[in-house]
Amino acid sequence: MKPHTKTFSLRTVEWKNNAVVMIDQTKLPNKLVFVKYTDYKDVANAIKTLVIRGAPAIGVSGAFGLALAALQSKARTKEKLVGDLEKARKTLFETRPTAVNLAWGLDKIMKVANEINDVSEIKKSIIQTAKRMAEEDIETNMKMGKHGSALFSNNDTIMTHCNAGALATVGYGTALGVIRAAKENGKKIKVIATETRPVMQGSRLTAFELKHDGIDVSLIPDTAVGYAMSKGLVNKVIVGADRILRTGHVYNKIGTYQVAMMAKQHKIPFYVAAPLSTFDLKSDPKDVIIEQRKSTEVTQIGDRKTAPDDITVINPAFDMTPPELISGIITEAGIAKQPFEESIKKLFKSRL
Amino acid sequence: MKPHTKTFSLRTVEWKNNAVVMIDQTKLPNKLVFVKYTDYKDVANAIKTLVIRGAPAIGVSGAFGLALAALQSKARTKEKLVGDLEKARKTLFETRPTAVNLAWGLDKIMKVANEINDVSEIKKSIIQTAKRMAEEDIETNMKMGKHGSALFSNNDTIMTHCNAGALATVGYGTALGVIRAAKENGKKIKVIATETRPVMQGSRLTAFELKHDGIDVSLIPDTAVGYAMSKGLVNKVIVGADRILRTGHVYNKIGTYQVAMMAKQHKIPFYVAAPLSTFDLKSDPKDVIIEQRKSTEVTQIGDRKTAPDDITVINPAFDMTPPELISGIITEAGIAKQPFEESIKKLFKSRL
Repeated sequence: MKPHTKTFSLRTVEWKNNAVVMIDQTKLPNKLVFVKYTDYKDVANAIKTLVIRGAPAIGVSGAFGLALAALQSKARTKEKLVGDLEKARKTLFETRPTAVNLAWGLDKIMKVANEINDVSEIKKSIIQTAKRMAEEDIETNMKMGKHGSALFSNNDTIMTHCNAGALATVGYGTALGVIRAAKENGKKIKVIATETRPVMQGSRLTAFELKHDGIDVSLIPDTAVGYAMSKGLVNKVIVGADRILRTGHVYNKIGTYQVAMMAKQHKIPFYVAAPLSTFDLKSDPKDVIIEQRKSTEVTQIGDRKTAPDDITVINPAFDMTPPELISGIITEAGIAKQPFEESIKKLFKSRL
Repeated sequence: MKPHTKTFSLRTVEWKNNAVVMIDQTKLPNKLVFVKYTDYKDVANAIKTLVIRGAPAIGVSGAFGLALAALQSKARTKEKLVGDLEKARKTLFETRPTAVNLAWGLDKIMKVANEINDVSEIKKSIIQTAKRMAEEDIETNMKMGKHGSALFSNNDTIMTHCNAGALATVGYGTALGVIRAAKENGKKIKVIATETRPVMQGSRLTAFELKHDGIDVSLIPDTAVGYAMSKGLVNKVIVGADRILRTGHVYNKIGTYQVAMMAKQHKIPFYVAAPLSTFDLKSDPKDVIIEQRKSTEVTQIGDRKTAPDDITVINPAFDMTPPELISGIITEAGIAKQPFEESIKKLFKSRL
């Protein structure tokens, strides 16, 4: 597989000389620090303390954690090695037990271990599989970029919300991957990033990674979305997704819905970029529970209080953008369009 | 004039025993501290350092500053006293030279000084005039409350953006004054306050003053406006205004426009509350320049950086809400309704 280093210099997580190298995202945007781990327990701790975040990124990190555990194991038999791996899997899993991708990454590696008999072959194969998972994540993002890039024109200014970037994936990113691809195709692109309160992924991560890659990016407070659109500063919008239903209902970071609605009112195309693994083909909107996050995200920043003590806070993690506000959903298999139910079905069929 | 202390315990600025007493708003929301000044230079400094802010509040503070200057003056002749006042007027004016209300408050006092001949009569009359200006600000707000209160129903949850409250006026508030009036009329009212990035007047001031008055208030990040409306958590919206044109175009804190648009899409009535002094009957939308504020409001909170160094920031102070999104504009003379141009003209005529 060819290396993907053309225009994206940020790689969130990587396997290098029998070690896992990650960007320490807790230090962003002030410092770009890479950390190197050779003990799976350090990887577990990194996931737990948000050194690394973003569903695809932590899925692959879990797999790399197990690869380290395999190397660390002194087992001479398959049974002992699988036992050591099982212990490591448990430690890694418990760092973010509700993350679907983490369980997926760990299970995939355990399956490899169980299928092979020779101890050194198991170790070799685990490392290879984990590395392939990382490459596949980037491949998926680049395919999305290829499909999505055609939707953007030279001199477009694209608004994005939250961070669906290299820093949420192994590299390249989903929504920001499409922006990177458009730029690689020779289009002059500007980006407007929303701050994305309360956790500020827009200012901390998106502004950082685009600036780092030399992409023209401006930051706005979330309150200036309507202003920017009404002043003609925005041609397109692109965001990522946490979950997409078969009907085209998109669950994504809180604030996405109002960005989509404002875009519709200003006749600005609104796109979503997400891999097929993000689709939940079984649930209906009424089944999806939107979790509330802790109030201190809204009432203080660092140690600094910004609201009165004991104030009641409504702090939903996500909101739902209905299909009628969405111009297209960009996946690695192509672009789903209205009516989404039919179009999404086709994309999945094309993958069989 | 009867005292207005029924249900609002917060008085932003007040004349008490030949001194000016203010809430130090730089200490909010963590501490409610009152400061007392007997030197006009301290009042000037308070305006400059945002101990007090909000157009009506600083207009009256300027007048109180001149009242202190009159008391401080040792002049025995009218000429000397007016000279001392002129010097104080200059110092006070230069604290916020673009604030229309500050110039208005200072001019009104200077006119009193120029019209009377006896030194001790001038001093007495200045103090009386300044006190009357403060009372009139509250009277105006209470009249707005009386008119506006009828628009709200028992068990309404009202969303508000920024702080159009007691803390922006001498007391009672404009938009929050209407909420207070609805509550005084026996209606059960809940409020949802938006954080209002970047300066966070919603969390720092609105949440504080409503909670202080025992009004049920919840705080949301600006990104959760659409979520709250789509979940049926909001029945009405009310905001203040910085400037209203004869056509009903409303200039208010950045973010107001998108709150209004989201309200329209969810069929939630959107009201503006502002005194007639807020109306600019001469300008057209094309004449109104929206100032950009400094980027550090968006890139750091206190000393804590939240965005990469040297990032480009778009940070408009205000946005424009077009008349078609507005259900009514509540003034002390009554409520303007669509079509606004005609309705606003009538309100002004009724005051002649």
